[in-house]
Amino acid sequence: MLRIGIVGLGLIGGSLGIDLRAKGHYVVGLSRRPETCERAIAKGAIDWGSTEPEILRALDLVFLCPPIGSILPVALDIRPYLSPETVLTDVGSVKGEIVPALEKLWPRYVGGHPMAGTAESGIEAAQAHLFENAPYVLTPTLYTDSAAIDCVAGVVNDLGAKLLYATPADHDRAVAWISHLPVLVSAALLLANAQEANEPIRKLAQQLASSGFRDTSRVGGGNPALGRMMAEYNRAAVRHCLIHYRATLDDLIRQVEQEDWERLHTTLEEAQAYREQVYPSGTPPVV
Amino acid sequence: MLRIGIVGLGLIGGSLGIDLRAKGHYVVGLSRRPETCERAIAKGAIDWGSTEPEILRALDLVFLCPPIGSILPVALDIRPYLSPETVLTDVGSVKGEIVPALEKLWPRYVGGHPMAGTAESGIEAAQAHLFENAPYVLTPTLYTDSAAIDCVAGVVNDLGAKLLYATPADHDRAVAWISHLPVLVSAALLLANAQEANEPIRKLAQQLASSGFRDTSRVGGGNPALGRMMAEYNRAAVRHCLIHYRATLDDLIRQVEQEDWERLHTTLEEAQAYREQVYPSGTPPVV
Repeated sequence: MLRIGIVGLGLIGGSLGIDLRAKGHYVVGLSRRPETCERAIAKGAIDWGSTEPEILRALDLVFLCPPIGSILPVALDIRPYLSPETVLTDVGSVKGEIVPALEKLWPRYVGGHPMAGTAESGIEAAQAHLFENAPYVLTPTLYTDSAAIDCVAGVVNDLGAKLLYATPADHDRAVAWISHLPVLVSAALLLANAQEANEPIRKLAQQLASSGFRDTSRVGGGNPALGRMMAEYNRAAVRHCLIHYRATLDDLIRQVEQEDWERLHTTLEEAQAYREQVYPSGTPPVV
Repeated sequence: MLRIGIVGLGLIGGSLGIDLRAKGHYVVGLSRRPETCERAIAKGAIDWGSTEPEILRALDLVFLCPPIGSILPVALDIRPYLSPETVLTDVGSVKGEIVPALEKLWPRYVGGHPMAGTAESGIEAAQAHLFENAPYVLTPTLYTDSAAIDCVAGVVNDLGAKLLYATPADHDRAVAWISHLPVLVSAALLLANAQEANEPIRKLAQQLASSGFRDTSRVGGGNPALGRMMAEYNRAAVRHCLIHYRATLDDLIRQVEQEDWERLHTTLEEAQAYREQVYPSGTPPVV
């Protein structure tokens, strides 16, 4: 049983609390708003909550779960209240800038990224088993305390998540491909369609839109603040992916313009083969 | 009760047969392979089947359900066997070239496009209720016999589908936006990722891929022959969409390169608002 603190009681913080309490850990929460603490207690996400950082004293492990832009300022705010032996981790979805800053700030820090979420946000959206079978990346560096890694890894296993290790830079480049680029590709699909000047065509397209358009446009229609922050905090990797994506798109456009249907067929076969490699047939879908 | 013929017993033809028989119609099937007829009878998709076009004599309505590239040649093959009063329709997903050709060939022809499908194909994939609540577009022209329209419309209603009317050209432009463009946008995402030269990053990306990448890459990893035919038969509209999509993508790339995060935020808000317009919150998903 660990004494665990959660700073920021939103979807991720609240869902962590629900599962960690279910595993027998004692969980306290810190939020700026007293009502959020009350809701988190009522939902069973924390044992106790407060708006005062004193609540973080004498804990084994603290999760930083504010929006990515607030992780560093919040860490600075709470640092005076942490005991020297407390392990600190965060759940930010980009690690390249946060990890070096936080490890200077706190010797027992390990970067982390639970790759789970829903379309909803806030404490009301918190749910049990959110992290089960989802990847959870830890991003230790040469400076990371190995006992701190073991502590966070143990809790990740408690959550039933798929534990992976990566350097902060590799993590950021990989998530740019599978998380941040899809948001922009998908947003561009919505925007291009929205800008179709022929209104009857646009209206008809909306009436005909079925599962293909719905799936392809889902992440592009998500939280704009989150999409913006992904691009802002991971701009080098996102730019790399965008440039390569545009080159691939240009190849497809060229095949259509040259009416090279054999080449298009081969290209689509390559796409199908790669997807089969990432999601082998018969594998139950990872949610 | 109508006497209905289905030419081509795949996913669409077989699923039509199952529902139409359930509504009390008498359904015969024409296939090139005797085994397919046997399987279709065994699945309850047809009352009787044959490899001989004589089976199409004295029917009220015939559905042409071969792959899009075979619709015209198959129509020419069966024409000598149809009774003059038989209504002819097809299920091709592009209408601009097929409709003028078929209406010259058969006076009682009405173009159609049931917008339903699964990842599977063939008679084994045929299923009941495939068309329920799905859009079913009819594309009559100035030359179309109005009694023929009423006949097909009645059967579409029997299927529980959402009946819509559009000109062949408008239909093709609308499906380019919501069906054909998403395939190419999604395939480009898979291909760009597959071409990441850094193998450890590519492997890590595959391990981390979760629901966002899965949804955005789904249609791009589908049947290459189908994707190729969509682009080939609908090339003008697909090209129009691709060019507009590239311009929209270029705007996003420019915002990232100029680090104009406020502008990116506004752009993503527009994408979110458009998706909310197409799929209002709380609406049950259309499958």
